[in-house]
Amino acid sequence: VETKLPKVGTTIFTVMSQLAAQHGAVNLGQGFPDFPVPARLVEALTRAMQAGHNQYSMMTGIPALRQAIASKTARCYDWMPDVDAEITVTSGATEAIFNAIHAVVRAGEEVIVLDPCYDCYEPAIELAGATAVHVALNPQTFAPDWDAVRAAITPRTRMLMINSPHNPSGAMFSAADMQALIALLDGTEIILLSDEVYEHIVFDGARHESALLYPQLRQRAFVISSFGKTYHCTGWKLGYAIAPPALSAEFRKVHQYNVFCSFNPAQHAFAEMIEAEPEHYETLGAFYQDKRDRFRAQLATTRLKLLPVPGGYFQLVDYSAVSDLPDLEFARWLTQAHGVTGIPLSPFYANPPAGQRLLRLCFAKNEATVNAAVERLSKL
Amino acid sequence: VETKLPKVGTTIFTVMSQLAAQHGAVNLGQGFPDFPVPARLVEALTRAMQAGHNQYSMMTGIPALRQAIASKTARCYDWMPDVDAEITVTSGATEAIFNAIHAVVRAGEEVIVLDPCYDCYEPAIELAGATAVHVALNPQTFAPDWDAVRAAITPRTRMLMINSPHNPSGAMFSAADMQALIALLDGTEIILLSDEVYEHIVFDGARHESALLYPQLRQRAFVISSFGKTYHCTGWKLGYAIAPPALSAEFRKVHQYNVFCSFNPAQHAFAEMIEAEPEHYETLGAFYQDKRDRFRAQLATTRLKLLPVPGGYFQLVDYSAVSDLPDLEFARWLTQAHGVTGIPLSPFYANPPAGQRLLRLCFAKNEATVNAAVERLSKL
Ligand SMILES: CSCCC(=O)C(=O)O
Ligand SMILES: CSCCC(=O)C(=O)O
Repeated sequence: VETKLPKVGTTIFTVMSQLAAQHGAVNLGQGFPDFPVPARLVEALTRAMQAGHNQYSMMTGIPALRQAIASKTARCYDWMPDVDAEITVTSGATEAIFNAIHAVVRAGEEVIVLDPCYDCYEPAIELAGATAVHVALNPQTFAPDWDAVRAAITPRTRMLMINSPHNPSGAMFSAADMQALIALLDGTEIILLSDEVYEHIVFDGARHESALLYPQLRQRAFVISSFGKTYHCTGWKLGYAIAPPALSAEFRKVHQYNVFCSFNPAQHAFAEMIEAEPEHYETLGAFYQDKRDRFRAQLATTRLKLLPVPGGYFQLVDYSAVSDLPDLEFARWLTQAHGVTGIPLSPFYANPPAGQRLLRLCFAKNEATVNAAVERLSKL
Repeated sequence: VETKLPKVGTTIFTVMSQLAAQHGAVNLGQGFPDFPVPARLVEALTRAMQAGHNQYSMMTGIPALRQAIASKTARCYDWMPDVDAEITVTSGATEAIFNAIHAVVRAGEEVIVLDPCYDCYEPAIELAGATAVHVALNPQTFAPDWDAVRAAITPRTRMLMINSPHNPSGAMFSAADMQALIALLDGTEIILLSDEVYEHIVFDGARHESALLYPQLRQRAFVISSFGKTYHCTGWKLGYAIAPPALSAEFRKVHQYNVFCSFNPAQHAFAEMIEAEPEHYETLGAFYQDKRDRFRAQLATTRLKLLPVPGGYFQLVDYSAVSDLPDLEFARWLTQAHGVTGIPLSPFYANPPAGQRLLRLCFAKNEATVNAAVERLSKL
C-alpha cells in the first residue's frame, strides 16, 4: 500500500534511544525520569488489581479520578471543571492530542502549530486530512510572535495548538501572552489545543499560565495534561483532556472508538494519590528546580552554552563553540564519540532555522546519571 | 462545532450498564468477566512496577512480549511472525482496529463489514473519511454469504473486516469459509482485517480458523487479538496486531502518534504469563464451554429459545415467545421489570432484520451471577 504518512519515519526519540543503547551512552535524550515512581502509587495500583478493578472502566474514566482531577484543577487554577461533562481520562496525553484533533478538525482545514513543536502534532493533523501551518517561535527566546500567528490565520483555520511549559525549549507563556492570545482568538471560531503536560514543572516562582485560568480561553479549548510527567511514570500512559461539554462530547466520540478506556487499576491509583498527597505536585517544581540548578552548575564548566530553563525537564545547550556539525550529526557524533545522548532540535521544526546549533538534554535523571553525563561532556 | 460523527451516540454497552446499575439488575450485557484475573498476572505486574518498568516501552511493545506472542502464534497456528517487523502491541484490540483502518484506508474508499458487527468498526471507518459497506450475515446462522460479499466489492474497496469467533453471535468461520475468502480476495488489492479477539474461546473441539493459518490471507491481513478476553482483564487494555512488514510499518505510524506505547508493567506481566502458563489459553475453551453448558442447561427451563454458541462468551436468545417488543425496548423492559440486562442486537446492524427478536447474554460470569440471572429469567 501507498503510505498515508509519507513524512513519518521512526521518531527521533526512538532513533536516539536505540543509538544510546548501541553505544552504551548516557541517555539524556527521550524525556523520561530514571528514578522510582512514588511508592504509594505502586501500592495503590496493586491494591486496585487485588480489589478486582480489572475490567473496563467507564469510557470517560472512573468517577473518582475525574473528581480528583476536578478538585486539583480547582486548587491549581481556581476554576472547577464539570466532573461528568468536561473531563475525559485518556491513555496518555498523546492519545488526548490525537483525539482532540480528530474530533474537530476536518479534511481540508488548517491547524496552526508553533515551531519547534512536539513531533506528534503534525502527523495527527495530516491523518485527519488537514494541514499543519507552521509559525516559528523566536529562535532565541522561543517566545510566540502573535502578529505572525495572526497573519497565518485563514478562513480554513480550525485549531491553534500551544504548549507551555514548552517542549523542547522549556519556555513559558507570560500573562501578556495569554492576553494577546485572548485578543487573537476573540471573534473567531478557532479551537485552542493547550498541551500542558509540564504544568507542575515550573521554576523560580513563575506561575504556569494555564488556559484554564482564562474563561475566554477555556470555553474554546482542549486542555491536556499527563500523569506520566507529574508522577515519574511515562510508561503508565495516563492523561486527560478538559474541555467544555460540546467539545468533550466530540472528543469522547473519538476516544470511545479509539481505545474506549484506559488501564483501570492505574485510574484508581491516581484517584487515591492526587487526593492523598497534593504536596507531590505542589513540590514538583522545587524537586526539578534542584535538579536543573545542579545540572546547570555542572555544565557551566563545559564548553556548552546554556539557554534559560523556565519550566519542564529539558536543558537546551548551544554547542557552537564545540562543533560546526548540523544538530542531527552532532547528536550522533556526541553519542558515538563521547557517550552522551541528547535530542537534536531540527526534527521539531518544519523548517529548522539555518545555523541553529542546539541540543536538548533531559535532566529528569538521578545524580549518578547526570554526573556520568557531565563528566563525559566536560571532555568536549 | 458541527459533529464529525453524527451517528455516534453513547455505546449500547454503556447505556445498558448504566441502566443495569440504576435498576440493580444482574448485568449480562457488556462483555466482561466478573471473576478474578490469574494470580500470576497480578503478581508479575506488581513485580514489573517494583523492578522499575514504569517508563515508555519501545513503541512497538517490549521485545519479550513480542517474542512471547510470536512463540504462542507458532504453537497455535504453526507459523511464526517476525518479532521485529510483524507484531505491534497496542492498548487493546480497539486501538489496533482503529490504527489498522487509519493506516491504510483513505478518504473516499470503502470498507466491507459483515453485519451484525462490533460497534467500533463503522465510526473508525467514517473518521478515516471512508464508507462502511454493510453485507448481512445469514440472520439465522450468522454464516457469511460470500457471493453477497463479492457483489459488494467495487474499485474503491480497500478493506474487508471479518470477525470469528463472532461478536455478538458466537458463530465461527469454517475451513470452507476460509477457502472461499482466499478465492474472493485472490487477484484483488483488498486488505483483510481479521478481528480474532475470541480466538481461544472455542468449543466442542472446533478449530479456530485464524487468518494466520493461511499464507494467502496473512500476507494481506491485520490479525488482531486481545489479552483482555484471554486473561479475564478487559480493563487492562492490552492487545496486538500481526501484519506483514509493509502493513505493520503503516500501522505503527498511526500507533506511534496515537498512543505511542502501552502500559509498560502489563507488557512484562503478559510476557511472563504467556510463556509460564501456556495451559491457561489452551484450557480456556474448556473453561468457558463448562460455563456455556451450565448456562444453557439452566436457560432451557425458561421461555427463551437458545441459539447455538460455537465460540466466544455470549449466548444469543430468541425472546419471540415472551414478547413482541423490538429488541431495544425489550432489553430495557427486561432490565426494569425483571432485573436482568442483556444487549439488544439491532445496534450491531446498519439495517436490523425486520422482526428479529434476539438478545445477547454474556456468560463470562461466576456461578452466583448466572444463578441470579436465571432465577429471574425463569419468571418470564
Ligand atoms: C514518546 S517518546 C518522547 C518523550 C518526550 O516527551 C520527549 O522526549 O519529548
Ligand atoms: C468496550 S465495551 C464492549 C465490550 C464488548 O466487547 C462487548 O460487550 O461486545
